[in-house]
Amino acid sequence: MHFKKPQEILLLGPGPSPVHSRILEAMGQHTLGHLDPEFLDLMNQTTELLRYVFETENRITFPVSGTGSAGMEAALVNMLEPGEKAVVGVNGVFGQRMSDVASRCGAEVVEVEAPWGRPVEPEILEQALKKHPDVKLVGLVHAETSTGVLQPLDSLVEIIHNCGALVLVDAVTSLGGIPVEVDRRELDIVYSGNQKCLGAPPGLAPITFGDRALKYFGERKNKVQSWYLDLSFLIRYWGEERLYHHTAPVNMIYALYEALSIIKEEGLKDRFARHLLHSSALVNGLKGLGVETVVPEEYRLPSLTSVSIPDGIDDAEVRHRLRHEHLIEIGGGLGPFKGKVWRIGLMGNGSQRGNVERLLKSLAVTLNSLGHSCSSAEAISEADKVYR
Amino acid sequence: MHFKKPQEILLLGPGPSPVHSRILEAMGQHTLGHLDPEFLDLMNQTTELLRYVFETENRITFPVSGTGSAGMEAALVNMLEPGEKAVVGVNGVFGQRMSDVASRCGAEVVEVEAPWGRPVEPEILEQALKKHPDVKLVGLVHAETSTGVLQPLDSLVEIIHNCGALVLVDAVTSLGGIPVEVDRRELDIVYSGNQKCLGAPPGLAPITFGDRALKYFGERKNKVQSWYLDLSFLIRYWGEERLYHHTAPVNMIYALYEALSIIKEEGLKDRFARHLLHSSALVNGLKGLGVETVVPEEYRLPSLTSVSIPDGIDDAEVRHRLRHEHLIEIGGGLGPFKGKVWRIGLMGNGSQRGNVERLLKSLAVTLNSLGHSCSSAEAISEADKVYR
Repeated sequence: MHFKKPQEILLLGPGPSPVHSRILEAMGQHTLGHLDPEFLDLMNQTTELLRYVFETENRITFPVSGTGSAGMEAALVNMLEPGEKAVVGVNGVFGQRMSDVASRCGAEVVEVEAPWGRPVEPEILEQALKKHPDVKLVGLVHAETSTGVLQPLDSLVEIIHNCGALVLVDAVTSLGGIPVEVDRRELDIVYSGNQKCLGAPPGLAPITFGDRALKYFGERKNKVQSWYLDLSFLIRYWGEERLYHHTAPVNMIYALYEALSIIKEEGLKDRFARHLLHSSALVNGLKGLGVETVVPEEYRLPSLTSVSIPDGIDDAEVRHRLRHEHLIEIGGGLGPFKGKVWRIGLMGNGSQRGNVERLLKSLAVTLNSLGHSCSSAEAISEADKVYR
Repeated sequence: MHFKKPQEILLLGPGPSPVHSRILEAMGQHTLGHLDPEFLDLMNQTTELLRYVFETENRITFPVSGTGSAGMEAALVNMLEPGEKAVVGVNGVFGQRMSDVASRCGAEVVEVEAPWGRPVEPEILEQALKKHPDVKLVGLVHAETSTGVLQPLDSLVEIIHNCGALVLVDAVTSLGGIPVEVDRRELDIVYSGNQKCLGAPPGLAPITFGDRALKYFGERKNKVQSWYLDLSFLIRYWGEERLYHHTAPVNMIYALYEALSIIKEEGLKDRFARHLLHSSALVNGLKGLGVETVVPEEYRLPSLTSVSIPDGIDDAEVRHRLRHEHLIEIGGGLGPFKGKVWRIGLMGNGSQRGNVERLLKSLAVTLNSLGHSCSSAEAISEADKVYR
């Protein structure tokens, strides 16, 4: 049976984000061989654009052939060896996942916790590092997709640098929407995913390794436990040697190239400002509907807003109606937030005034029909205050 | 800079194979959420079609979110634990890779070897299993992409069944072009790749696990070393629970669905016959050019033909001219075959009479221009004998 064209759903959940038609068109072009000269040239251009988006001059910057979680795994399996010690900041699903992946590398993992909806505090990290001065690596989630918390990095990174450990950052829901600044912050390993603020379809995980990380990698005593993600091979394919490792997902790289080109055309500064603007309008509009956000303003992600589901309102019913009656996807809560929180993403091409207004109106209709009285006009008027 | 449409290169190398326009079109459709009801429905249809192509009723049949080598790694990390013993058939790059991946799982690996260009012999395997009766798993490469050898499976599988070990088969370059017959052969774990006989762009690795494999999996003592490829999570996302694990590569799954639909429409039997027909015509035509094949007929892959580069002919120069003057890609040799062998794939949509003739003519022009005298007309006439 022929593939049935999917409906165009407005993706305002925690990712994937709406994909620009230019990117979809690029992805549907003829497949080239993974060692074809024209494709190798595109690989070079793609890594150059990735350096721009990561704000780094790191030579080893490329997309891992898997989704964001493969990027996390690539970072950890290459940097950790059995018996080594890692500290991981845990304040949501993705910090927890990082801890799990690190322990599967045979590392001893020390979790530094914060409540869901709050960032990891510098004092807690400092205490942990004092207690464990032999830590090799500290992993932090820059943008916790399960809660909508933006982790302030500078103070934590300073503490980590002072103790000499490597800094590993999960930038899955920040890269391309919020400043990551790999070089300015001297982050050692940073990975992301295609399908959030970069605005491409899911399937690749951009990653970058700094010199200090590579030095540690060169001193490894054991083979990397993953053949597929072994950096020594990946460097030789993405670098000048072009030595075959695995068959690169060619058309996904077309898509990533085009997504990065769009970012370069817009410019990072304008793109960050756009994400901030529409997220502020969304938060104002939600207040106009009587819906409260979960994360205090200073830690709130511009790419993802988590909101408390109003009392008496059925989580699944609202998301079902938004999806089927208004063709909008928003996300439900995970773990302790399940049934209590919605996650609304304004990422990449999704971060637009028209989308904010469409969501507010649709949500107003839906909430009213379920007995939560609210005014669409008031919500729009609140949002408009930000745009004035 | 806008993505520059790539040239349409006729992909007659060891993969990727030419992608049908229907598949490219499917891939460029709007991205749905990875938990969207419409997408979940497509996932079900895709796994149903995968069962058809694998010829299995295995419940646990799905595409791994990575390329073929991720499929290999998924098979091995889930089935092997540290200290367990595996036998791997090695007669080319991919058997060697399987051995490497298995040893990175902490397994003790016994390699059963055959020369490049020849299959693994039953007697050698039998001896190895007698010497190592405690083997948990035997890994075999059904279609060795580095040499063009088709491994006869039935006699080997019988030997393995008799000793009670699991049978793991790499069907990367066979699935969809050559009978794999998972259920009839009682193969326990089989994986493949999108970009060969299935005819989709690279990026996914279909895999299937039988009941015996799942039973062993359920008895594991250790966590799977890869979080990304941990079957216990993947089962819960691809199965009825639909529990979020990682964000599936949505558009790649559109492409796979459409590729599988095309296979179902053609029918496996006709598709296998087509691969055999055009490969026979190619081999005949090559003889007409005075170019010899590497693998004896009984072990020759219908999807990939390896040929000896004629004396005095420069490998790279021929491939360069084919690519730039005739817009055709063929593959070079790997390892001991480097500079000595070309690999010509007729896979999926690439396996067509017009492609055989275009390649023979282009190769004749190229070889003549480099001083290897040969007749294009004679090659076509030899190929035609097969089509009569």
